[in-house]
Amino acid sequence: MTLRVTVWNEGRHEKTHEDVRKMYPEGLHQPIVNFLREQGMQARAATLDEPEHGLTEAALAETDVLIWWGHMAHGDVQDAIVERVRQRVLEGMGLIVLHSGHFSKIFKLLMGTSCNLKWREANERERIWVVSPGHPITEGLGEYFEIPREEMYGEFFDVPAPDELVFVSWFQGGEVFRSGCCYTRGRGRIFYFRPGHETYPTYYQPEVLRVIANAVRWAAPSAGPSVTFGQRPQPLEKLG
Amino acid sequence: MTLRVTVWNEGRHEKTHEDVRKMYPEGLHQPIVNFLREQGMQARAATLDEPEHGLTEAALAETDVLIWWGHMAHGDVQDAIVERVRQRVLEGMGLIVLHSGHFSKIFKLLMGTSCNLKWREANERERIWVVSPGHPITEGLGEYFEIPREEMYGEFFDVPAPDELVFVSWFQGGEVFRSGCCYTRGRGRIFYFRPGHETYPTYYQPEVLRVIANAVRWAAPSAGPSVTFGQRPQPLEKLG
Amino acid sequence: MTLRVTVWNEGRHEKTHEDVRKMYPEGLHQPIVNFLREQGMQARAATLDEPEHGLTEAALAETDVLIWWGHMAHGDVQDAIVERVRQRVLEGMGLIVLHSGHFSKIFKLLMGTSCNLKWREANERERIWVVSPGHPITEGLGEYFEIPREEMYGEFFDVPAPDELVFVSWFQGGEVFRSGCCYTRGRGRIFYFRPGHETYPTYYQPEVLRVIANAVRWAAPSAGPSVTFGQRPQPLEKLG
Amino acid sequence: MTLRVTVWNEGRHEKTHEDVRKMYPEGLHQPIVNFLREQGMQARAATLDEPEHGLTEAALAETDVLIWWGHMAHGDVQDAIVERVRQRVLEGMGLIVLHSGHFSKIFKLLMGTSCNLKWREANERERIWVVSPGHPITEGLGEYFEIPREEMYGEFFDVPAPDELVFVSWFQGGEVFRSGCCYTRGRGRIFYFRPGHETYPTYYQPEVLRVIANAVRWAAPSAGPSVTFGQRPQPLEKLG
Repeated sequence: MTLRVTVWNEGRHEKTHEDVRKMYPEGLHQPIVNFLREQGMQARAATLDEPEHGLTEAALAETDVLIWWGHMAHGDVQDAIVERVRQRVLEGMGLIVLHSGHFSKIFKLLMGTSCNLKWREANERERIWVVSPGHPITEGLGEYFEIPREEMYGEFFDVPAPDELVFVSWFQGGEVFRSGCCYTRGRGRIFYFRPGHETYPTYYQPEVLRVIANAVRWAAPSAGPSVTFGQRPQPLEKLG
Repeated sequence: MTLRVTVWNEGRHEKTHEDVRKMYPEGLHQPIVNFLREQGMQARAATLDEPEHGLTEAALAETDVLIWWGHMAHGDVQDAIVERVRQRVLEGMGLIVLHSGHFSKIFKLLMGTSCNLKWREANERERIWVVSPGHPITEGLGEYFEIPREEMYGEFFDVPAPDELVFVSWFQGGEVFRSGCCYTRGRGRIFYFRPGHETYPTYYQPEVLRVIANAVRWAAPSAGPSVTFGQRPQPLEKLG
Repeated sequence: MTLRVTVWNEGRHEKTHEDVRKMYPEGLHQPIVNFLREQGMQARAATLDEPEHGLTEAALAETDVLIWWGHMAHGDVQDAIVERVRQRVLEGMGLIVLHSGHFSKIFKLLMGTSCNLKWREANERERIWVVSPGHPITEGLGEYFEIPREEMYGEFFDVPAPDELVFVSWFQGGEVFRSGCCYTRGRGRIFYFRPGHETYPTYYQPEVLRVIANAVRWAAPSAGPSVTFGQRPQPLEKLG
Repeated sequence: MTLRVTVWNEGRHEKTHEDVRKMYPEGLHQPIVNFLREQGMQARAATLDEPEHGLTEAALAETDVLIWWGHMAHGDVQDAIVERVRQRVLEGMGLIVLHSGHFSKIFKLLMGTSCNLKWREANERERIWVVSPGHPITEGLGEYFEIPREEMYGEFFDVPAPDELVFVSWFQGGEVFRSGCCYTRGRGRIFYFRPGHETYPTYYQPEVLRVIANAVRWAAPSAGPSVTFGQRPQPLEKLG
């Protein structure tokens, strides 16, 4: 069955920063959308400035996995739409949160923590090591891959301990970071993936795209039981 | 060092339900407070109808571990105070959530999920099995203990998979429940413990009290590093 | 790609116990083999009394997922072949351990613990609850399913805390059990699934077969990195 | 209650390598023993070349936590004594495995995996980051600490995903490592801690000693239930 993916991009840097527009002339989401289509998925983009941020009930109902990139305008995302996304995740929709999305309302809401971290912009080298080589998110990778220049993110990353830790980043300046973190919330699977500062060509790098596509497959909903809550019937036999 | 515990009780059932008042004439929190004091802890009560719900900045600053029981008035707890409690947990204060506290604002906020479950009031027997016998929260217990009559809570319990699962309950009517769940959020430790419906003498039962006291010791703050967030200094050597 | 599954069955009860032979005239493994074939997998059987227990280097090299059932003759499995299986698991072959296989050499070796538990044969009802409804191993199931008569297994089950806990069993006589446990060891995925006493028609029950097939898909090897160990080259720049 | 610690050191490098003898004239274990005594613990040393490696039944019966350092002579440790230690861990004795102890028989047996890793001797800098700042093993530390020169250990480290990950190391030459890993096996708690190559003064460094002492307290046995295994009595009421 064809996976249906919505790639959500805040899309503001592309309007306000010339260097970002040059780097991603069709928007930071577009190389991701293109790659997922090449992988046989049905991918569409959605951005902050569309009506309902492009995340209508109908759009979400037809989304198996939602990818989220945001940075400078987290506060402009409407609470009601964040809650709508959260409900869909708890029902089973996959969610992949990229880079500065660590501070998005939806990620913070689902994690329950501050999701804060350390950072530095110094054009430094990042080396992303696989610490879970049997995990499907690592398919097609080597033992590590490098991003020549990236923003640094460093520990302590204030998230719950991931259910599965897939990647750990090494940064040239002396920091480490848990860069690939798997969670389940309700029936939904969530993957946080660190790379992707808007001024670098990170989302053109094959290994990064490969990880995102792998994560989409991993996070896709599965046909487990519909859960029910609330009052249960009395047992037939008298108890107590 | 003497542990400082605040036992927070909604305290409304005691005012409105004669049977609850009879069961817990000084409030459902009082047997817990008394037991913790016998264990050498400094325990105080706080209730919903006090100013700031008894959870002022000063009170929280002097609390190592907060115990939370609520049921019929979760909605009356002020959001600002819930956020205040959450910040303290992330900074390191322990939190023990009892029974119907699964639906409290603070627990839902820290978990990120619906925290919903199945339930039934049928005076049925609960048998609480230890599935982690090396865990300090099980000190002084046998392999299981029974509560003669309790409200049933059943799976699926919509919480994140616990970092450590300590207890699993068996119910006479055919359900199971993950009854003792450990989490860490930020620097704070959280323990959810299932038993304690307001119409049963659960909080007089020695095993239940023992678990609560053990959990207080487990959740007490430890003197790990103060974490810092935000921009890191540039490395001395030029990178990139 | 067609999944290649080897269903390993000790196969001794069928020779020595008339009731087991009647229940499973072609061997306890056969209904599993048949079902996996219906699911489009390439399934074969292997048994203890074949040369090298049917687990030659060649056979294992062509096995994506190995299913293991043993009971009365764990001690007759040769250590060298157990070690061969273990190496394959660490390299990425999936392993599904059924019921009394909890005491097999291969499972104990991979877990590091005693893998001991409580048991009772009393023809009692087992109700298997899903506690992880977003997990692919639960596909096609309801919130729980029942096995009308089974051997009871009870906690404490001396295994490492599972990486993911999928099922918890309720038994009529008062016990609970972690019945579906996921592990990763090396690059290999392991699933322990409780049901399947040899005197009951458990392996004809649709839900049980469904879980086994789901688990095969979950445990199938993925194409993550080949890992290397040992001495790393010196960095180009002088360090220290 | 005074904690009773046995610090086990292979003790062969001190006999055969002049530089190690100079670094640790009383044995690599002695600075650890001294520090634990200063912390009020009852600490003793045991070494490979003593009768029964200094790990008699009596010695283990009086040990709350065992610390293990070995490197060049893992193969000389008798299997029967390794099994004796394993039984004690499953019963509740704590175990702290240091550095090259990753390849000891006892650690490999309890983990079930190869416990292999990458390494390099290049006098490089190690920076050990805290990724779990609420964990008691981090008491008294800053957000990270540095070891000026150490042997490098790099991922993939072939161990089961730790129950709790406390430290991640950064190495100057470009690698990362999960340096502080918590496990529970049976009733026993296990902590793997990376630093401590025999040619460096690592075990004189205050932060390293502090971590070891914290880990002893964390791994100390707790008074949870004695577990029983095997056949359970029939229920009073007829079932099925």
